[in-house]
Amino acid sequence: MVARVSQAVGAWHKRRMYKFLSGLALAALSVSPLAAEEAAKALTPGDIVDAAPAADWAPIAPSDVIVMDLAPGAGGQARRVVIQLMPAPFSQGWVANIRKLVAARWYDGIAVVRVQDNYVVQWGDPDGEDPRKAKPLPGGLGIVPESDYVVPARQFPFRVQLKSNRSTDAYAKAALAVTGWPVAFGEDGAWPIHCYGMVGVGRNLSPDTGSGAELYAVIGTPPRQIDRNIALVGRVIAGIEHLSSLPRGTGPLGFYETPAERVPILSVRMGNEVSGLPAYEYLSTESASFAAYADKRANRKDDFYIRPAGGVDICNVPVPVRVAGGGVKRVGM
Amino acid sequence: MVARVSQAVGAWHKRRMYKFLSGLALAALSVSPLAAEEAAKALTPGDIVDAAPAADWAPIAPSDVIVMDLAPGAGGQARRVVIQLMPAPFSQGWVANIRKLVAARWYDGIAVVRVQDNYVVQWGDPDGEDPRKAKPLPGGLGIVPESDYVVPARQFPFRVQLKSNRSTDAYAKAALAVTGWPVAFGEDGAWPIHCYGMVGVGRNLSPDTGSGAELYAVIGTPPRQIDRNIALVGRVIAGIEHLSSLPRGTGPLGFYETPAERVPILSVRMGNEVSGLPAYEYLSTESASFAAYADKRANRKDDFYIRPAGGVDICNVPVPVRVAGGGVKRVGM
Repeated sequence: MVARVSQAVGAWHKRRMYKFLSGLALAALSVSPLAAEEAAKALTPGDIVDAAPAADWAPIAPSDVIVMDLAPGAGGQARRVVIQLMPAPFSQGWVANIRKLVAARWYDGIAVVRVQDNYVVQWGDPDGEDPRKAKPLPGGLGIVPESDYVVPARQFPFRVQLKSNRSTDAYAKAALAVTGWPVAFGEDGAWPIHCYGMVGVGRNLSPDTGSGAELYAVIGTPPRQIDRNIALVGRVIAGIEHLSSLPRGTGPLGFYETPAERVPILSVRMGNEVSGLPAYEYLSTESASFAAYADKRANRKDDFYIRPAGGVDICNVPVPVRVAGGGVKRVGM
Repeated sequence: MVARVSQAVGAWHKRRMYKFLSGLALAALSVSPLAAEEAAKALTPGDIVDAAPAADWAPIAPSDVIVMDLAPGAGGQARRVVIQLMPAPFSQGWVANIRKLVAARWYDGIAVVRVQDNYVVQWGDPDGEDPRKAKPLPGGLGIVPESDYVVPARQFPFRVQLKSNRSTDAYAKAALAVTGWPVAFGEDGAWPIHCYGMVGVGRNLSPDTGSGAELYAVIGTPPRQIDRNIALVGRVIAGIEHLSSLPRGTGPLGFYETPAERVPILSVRMGNEVSGLPAYEYLSTESASFAAYADKRANRKDDFYIRPAGGVDICNVPVPVRVAGGGVKRVGM
C-alpha cells in the first residue's frame, strides 16, 4: 500500500472565520460565504480557488514583474523565474532601484551565489565585495532609510483596528492577507511578511538597507525574525522550483565555495519587455472567494482531515496566483 | 557592493523570555540567564549554542536513529539522510512499525516518489497501489488508531498549565520545545508539530493511519494544518539537503511522472547497525542554554538586527543538533 499524504476529498463544513482575523475589524474584507457553499459537498482549498469567478481575480501588470532567466539546467532545460514587485505603499524606494537596475541591464551576468537550506537563495555580483572587481552600479539609485521597512498605519489603505491583546501571530498584533500580500500590523504600522517565496533585499550591517542589487528569495520556514529588519520587494510567482531545488552551498551561510557552483543569471527584464509572457493574475484578498479559501485552510474537515486546525498562520494562506484562466498549483495540498 | 542577509554580530541584550512561553508554566524549564550573559557583547543564537556547556547536550542513541542511503547523486556523491525517531510518549505504534520494517529490510529498494515544492519529500513503494505488484509488507505491523495522533496531557511528563486564552500560536493553546521536540498543547492533550525537517507517516483516507511503510519529510512552510491529522515519527538530523534539493515532481501533488525520475533508496538501517556513524546530540530543551538561545531567536538586536521581533514561532526555534563536540549548522542564520 502506498499511502498518500494529501489526496483529500470531503464534505464542506460551514465554520467560523479563521482565527487570525479575530483580532481585527476590517472594513473592506467580506466574510460572506460562497454562494455555492450549501451545494458543495467535497471542497478543498484548491477547489474553492478553482471555482472563484473571474471577477475575483486581479491582473498582475507585466510592467510590475521582473523575469529572471537562469542559465539552462544540466539537462538543457530553461529556468525562468518570474517575480512580482511589491506595490505601494511598501518598499517603493527599493522597487524603484530594482527598476533602474533592470533598465541598465545590470543584473545580466551576475549569479546565484548562496543557497542556504531552509532559509534563502541569494543572487548578486560574485565580486561585489572586492572594490577592484565589483561591477559598477548605475547612477541614480536611491538610498532608502530604515524607517521605510514599516509603513505608518495612516498610509495604509485599509482601516485596521488593533485590539490590545496580541493575535495568534507570534510576530505582530495581527497578520493577514490584504491588498494581495501578507501584511503584519503593529503599533508602529504595517509591514510585509517573510513567507515562502517572498523576495527581499540583501544588505550589510545597519544602517545600510541595501540598494536592490543583491536579492534573495525565501525557500524554507518563514524567517519572520527579519521582518522589519530587511526590505521585502516582491514574491516569486512562477519558477520558484528553479531556485529552491538548487544544490545547497557548503560555505558559511550557504554561500557557494567555488565559482563553478554559482548559477549564472543570463538576463533580467521587465515583464512588458518579454514577448510571450503569460498573463498572471492573483485571487483578490478582498473577495468572498479568498475569505472562503482562507477559512478552509484553517478549518478543513473531510475524508482526509479528521481534525480541523481551528486556526491558520498567515504564511499558510498563500495568495493564489495563476496564469489567467488556468489552474493554481499547490493551493490544494 | 554585495550585501549579506545574515552576517549579524551585535551586543547581548537581556530580554524577557520569548513570548510563546508566556501562556505556560513549566516546572522543568529553567529560565535563568547564562552565566556568561553580562560578559558577552556580541552573541548570536548560534554563538549561544556553541557556548553551551557539554552538560547541556543530550546524546541521541544510535538505536533511536535510522540511516537512509539514497543512490549516489549525478556526480557520484554519497547521499545519506539520518532521521531521529520520536521518543515516548509520542507515536510509538508507528515507530515500532518502522523498527520492524527496517529489521525486515523492507525499505531497501524503494524510492523517493514525490517532491512537492514548499511541502514534502515522500518515499515508499512505487508499486504500492497496485495489489499485483506491491512489495509485501512484513508480518507483525500494528494498526495504530487515530487517537494516537494526540497524547493525553496526563501522559505527558511535564506539568503544563494552560491559560484560557490562546497563545500566540495559531494552531494550539501553546507551542514550545520540550523534551527535545516541538510540541503543541491544547485541551485534548499534546501533539508533535510539523516543523521543517520533521518526518511523518503517509496514509490514505481516514480511518487509515498509515503503517510507516511510506514516509515524508517537510521541506517548506510548516504545514501545521496536518498536525493531529497525520502521525509524526521523527526528524531529519543530517542530510536534509539530499531531500530538499531534489528536482520537484511535475505530476499532481508533486509525484514524479516517470520511473527514471525517482530516487532509489539503497538501504535503511538502524544507527547501531552502521559502522562509523557520528555520535549525534541535541541541546536539551530544559537547559539554560536553550532558554537563552530561544530568547535570542525572539529578541535579537545587534549590528544587523535593528528591530527585535518580540516573539518567535515554535518552528523558528529548531532544536540544535550536532555531531558530538562539533558545530551546529544553520542555527546562526
